[in-house]
Amino acid sequence: MTATLPPAEIATGVMTWLSEFGDALAAGDPAAAAALFTEDCFWRDLIAFTWNIKTMEGPAAVEEMLAATLAQVQPSGWRITDGEEPADAGGVVEAWIDFETAAGRGRGHVRLRDGRCWTLLTSLYELKGHEEPQAPGRRPKGVQHGAIRERTTWLEGRQQEASELGVAEQPYVLIIGGGQAGIGLGARLRQLGVPTIIVDKRGRPGDQWRSRYKSLCLHDPIWYDHMPYLKFPDTWPVFSPKDKIADWLESYTKIMELNYWPSTEATSAAYDEAAGEWTVHVERDGQRMVLRPKQLVLATGMSGKPNQPSFPGMDEFRGDQHHSSAHPGPDAYRGKRCVVVGSNNSAFDICGALWENGADVTMVQRSSTHIVKSDTLMDIGLSALYSEEAVAAGMTTDKADMVFASIPYRIMAQFQTPLYEQMREKDQDFYDRLEAAGFDHDWGDDGSGLFMKYLRRGSGYYIDVGSADLVANGDVKLARGQVDHLTEDAVVLEDGTELPADLVVYATGYNSMNGWAADLISPEVADRVGKCWGLGSDTSKDPGPWEGEQRNMWKPTQQQALWFHGGNLHQSRHYSLYLALQLKARQAGVPTPVYGLQEVHHRS
Amino acid sequence: MTATLPPAEIATGVMTWLSEFGDALAAGDPAAAAALFTEDCFWRDLIAFTWNIKTMEGPAAVEEMLAATLAQVQPSGWRITDGEEPADAGGVVEAWIDFETAAGRGRGHVRLRDGRCWTLLTSLYELKGHEEPQAPGRRPKGVQHGAIRERTTWLEGRQQEASELGVAEQPYVLIIGGGQAGIGLGARLRQLGVPTIIVDKRGRPGDQWRSRYKSLCLHDPIWYDHMPYLKFPDTWPVFSPKDKIADWLESYTKIMELNYWPSTEATSAAYDEAAGEWTVHVERDGQRMVLRPKQLVLATGMSGKPNQPSFPGMDEFRGDQHHSSAHPGPDAYRGKRCVVVGSNNSAFDICGALWENGADVTMVQRSSTHIVKSDTLMDIGLSALYSEEAVAAGMTTDKADMVFASIPYRIMAQFQTPLYEQMREKDQDFYDRLEAAGFDHDWGDDGSGLFMKYLRRGSGYYIDVGSADLVANGDVKLARGQVDHLTEDAVVLEDGTELPADLVVYATGYNSMNGWAADLISPEVADRVGKCWGLGSDTSKDPGPWEGEQRNMWKPTQQQALWFHGGNLHQSRHYSLYLALQLKARQAGVPTPVYGLQEVHHRS
Repeated sequence: MTATLPPAEIATGVMTWLSEFGDALAAGDPAAAAALFTEDCFWRDLIAFTWNIKTMEGPAAVEEMLAATLAQVQPSGWRITDGEEPADAGGVVEAWIDFETAAGRGRGHVRLRDGRCWTLLTSLYELKGHEEPQAPGRRPKGVQHGAIRERTTWLEGRQQEASELGVAEQPYVLIIGGGQAGIGLGARLRQLGVPTIIVDKRGRPGDQWRSRYKSLCLHDPIWYDHMPYLKFPDTWPVFSPKDKIADWLESYTKIMELNYWPSTEATSAAYDEAAGEWTVHVERDGQRMVLRPKQLVLATGMSGKPNQPSFPGMDEFRGDQHHSSAHPGPDAYRGKRCVVVGSNNSAFDICGALWENGADVTMVQRSSTHIVKSDTLMDIGLSALYSEEAVAAGMTTDKADMVFASIPYRIMAQFQTPLYEQMREKDQDFYDRLEAAGFDHDWGDDGSGLFMKYLRRGSGYYIDVGSADLVANGDVKLARGQVDHLTEDAVVLEDGTELPADLVVYATGYNSMNGWAADLISPEVADRVGKCWGLGSDTSKDPGPWEGEQRNMWKPTQQQALWFHGGNLHQSRHYSLYLALQLKARQAGVPTPVYGLQEVHHRS
Repeated sequence: MTATLPPAEIATGVMTWLSEFGDALAAGDPAAAAALFTEDCFWRDLIAFTWNIKTMEGPAAVEEMLAATLAQVQPSGWRITDGEEPADAGGVVEAWIDFETAAGRGRGHVRLRDGRCWTLLTSLYELKGHEEPQAPGRRPKGVQHGAIRERTTWLEGRQQEASELGVAEQPYVLIIGGGQAGIGLGARLRQLGVPTIIVDKRGRPGDQWRSRYKSLCLHDPIWYDHMPYLKFPDTWPVFSPKDKIADWLESYTKIMELNYWPSTEATSAAYDEAAGEWTVHVERDGQRMVLRPKQLVLATGMSGKPNQPSFPGMDEFRGDQHHSSAHPGPDAYRGKRCVVVGSNNSAFDICGALWENGADVTMVQRSSTHIVKSDTLMDIGLSALYSEEAVAAGMTTDKADMVFASIPYRIMAQFQTPLYEQMREKDQDFYDRLEAAGFDHDWGDDGSGLFMKYLRRGSGYYIDVGSADLVANGDVKLARGQVDHLTEDAVVLEDGTELPADLVVYATGYNSMNGWAADLISPEVADRVGKCWGLGSDTSKDPGPWEGEQRNMWKPTQQQALWFHGGNLHQSRHYSLYLALQLKARQAGVPTPVYGLQEVHHRS
């Protein structure tokens, strides 16, 4: 380990590098700039240089990107962020940086090794001339002082907008799906002055959560879950119960003045290249309407459509059967025999709630699952960035998001693996008991644990809030194997095991988000856009080749003017900024040449 | 001016004083403690020593209070607040301090002059053993991890509480009035675990604002207006339009999980001394019910009941006439002749909105009014504590509230007068024009301006957001004098001036809050409690003798278990803490001997 340098020398090293880097960029010299990076370097750009979300790996990729973008981007003003001291940890110097481009203002993060750049994060946070109004000195007054004939009040203005948008005036953006992702993006677009409508088929904002099984609580702690602009109050519990988060989201749509159309289903959409706009048919409260937005965002859940399995005999089964997303909760199943097919988050939550309500429960494990105890995940996995302690130590949500964003996906597993080794050690007894009960447990293909599984495939894990013990101690019975068929009153596995059932829940997960595009637009467009989510890590359910970023999320796709938005609350919050700025730039006529539009390797 | 001492010596001086003060208190020696104060000293206590809101003036009053309270209060642990550097300004050393009592934890502020205490503020912020759950390390999980038979979900728990409280279980506190004051107090009581119901006669939370005239916006800026626990987001405008603040308050009641009964009118209340509880008759959605709370809080508006004047001929007048609180806004009065009786805030707002909508408007000024331009008030009057700049400089809302609270009312006018002299100078042209138009303008009896007028009488001023110019330039006509009578179609003044009118608005202010008690409980109780609001400053509409604190607000009254809560958003926010702690202490059985219960000098 390298000896740690004194603070002044560390800062000087960063300033020297920034100065040389800035000079090379100003001189329009991609080769000189690339020479300032290490051979194993990564440059992750969030729309500042590429108008894309893209990671360049290695100096050649850096040089190629700069050669294509430099003339347009005109970056300048590279400096260490005020009040942020660069730090040296084991020979890697880290610093927060600010910069500008022709179009906007950016911030980022740099890691230097021996005076050269190992990782660089660049992100745009606002467009020049289109700054958000809540910045210091720009906050709207809310009232126009003076005496003004025929003044329009706030309420009249809101009512007029609500009645005219989508009727007399077309929205620039249509967001389909009014969950936390859709409304968080809607809030940002409102602040940026982009006329936007959010449609959702459910009757009230928050119903996306209210309609789920009754024992559901968020598995991530509050510090991870803030929405843009409006933080949960300090009175909020650590893990939000589903109905409480639903009420919060409903209030959020009002507080942020969103044009939210409940009970509205989009039935078809087609893009008119010549006109540069979508034709979207919707049914609003049963009434058919046509919307013509310039941009269409699918925010219908990163999990995509429910993966409804098809087993022989399902039509003969006489009990209740439904996908986990349609499970009403345990109340009707007291004393009943319940078989839950699946062994990930939803399966465990549903098994636990059924058992708590006195049902006879069997879980069918079809493939191995990764389990981490919630408290352990909070302590070891999240506490440095998203915790009460982190907040007390001065970590803000924005900064935590940027720290997360600064780690290139290619090497993220290396950062994650040691944390999961700690977790395994801490809870060794728990894992021993689980495996003794016959549970097939894994730590991900490469041992990198839960978060990498989430990023790669969005499945294959359970954050244990108590139900795992029910399996370990046999209260919830465990069966392993594939389902062969159903009978009138049982689930039969391939090995012949017969599981008598009054209820079968298919906790069989979700398909890729582009399935929504297939239904709404066309199978052709869904295929052209390709699979959403995943990194191309060539691990289970995330086939290669390597993509470097999550497929199709928050960035341009192979279908012009079609965007996918979603992810967990942290991702929805952070990446909605970049998606909102991409949409705003297009609305405002700011040139947005996309560098390195992703190719499509998989259809779903 | 005394030369400023180096920081270490300043801190040493404060520590020495605190040490001597703490020793005298620990020794149970009121005389020794009082000897540490200057002859012109003030000790303002917010429930820490007195279980009252009380200012002791002079060492004898300090000694007397300590002699009565010390044995019970057992104060200790006097120290400078961590991270708060004492400062010396012109020979007055100021410091933030922490301390404890037997019952709870306190904080305060001290000003020393020549090593003795000139002003001391002591306040209790939490009760030992009854701390709010959102403190670090105590935040509720929101979910109980583990497998628990017959688990109750958050929603089930909330629904059960909502259906049982007031029916199967009686609330400890009943708050009448669900405006910002009532719900802010309700939120604090929820956090303290005090079963509370808030009733309001209007149909929806926020209707207190929605029902006002349509152009109304808050006259105080956002930094002054935060509710407890939940701050307005950065997207909020500086001056909240009435319907926007209404929506915020409606969301607040849900987010804070308040038991808010809309469409519920309290029709009578009586206190049963023997049972130690109130019998309150209410009509909820038209259904009669009886509530039996231990404590009753009137939060029906610090302004009290509308002061509806009675002029001869009002019954003959054929046009519309109503009190300003019932004014629907200008829409129906385009082209009509409108007479507004009064020249304070509501009168100006209503005149302005009527003029903006094309009405012919005359203001009747009956007595002099103090006017300050809103921007000037923000710049000079509020910017040090409640502004974007103050926040950027590290001023928190809590700290600003405490700074305000640290200035004894007796000398507050001295602090205020120079600010208003600056305002006069800045806007001299404006005042010249107003007076040239015949407007009778004043700066308060002693030149101390708007805030003192507010504290003393709650009336007599206008924060100008544009309408004053309409009077200055004659767009709104000005008549001066008293109303003599009305005819079929005119208002006639004492000097014979006849003002033709299709509409008369009586912007004639409000009576004392104890009028609510007269209606709800009895005239006898209202008289026993006496006038609310005002300081006894012996200035216009605030008769002496000197009270030292606002009459009857947020503290025990001459009627056991009856409390008055209200004030502007800043006061409601800050003093709701002390009112909530007084109520919690009584519920929890913590002894609360009241020192210096105020005497009643005026009935209304």
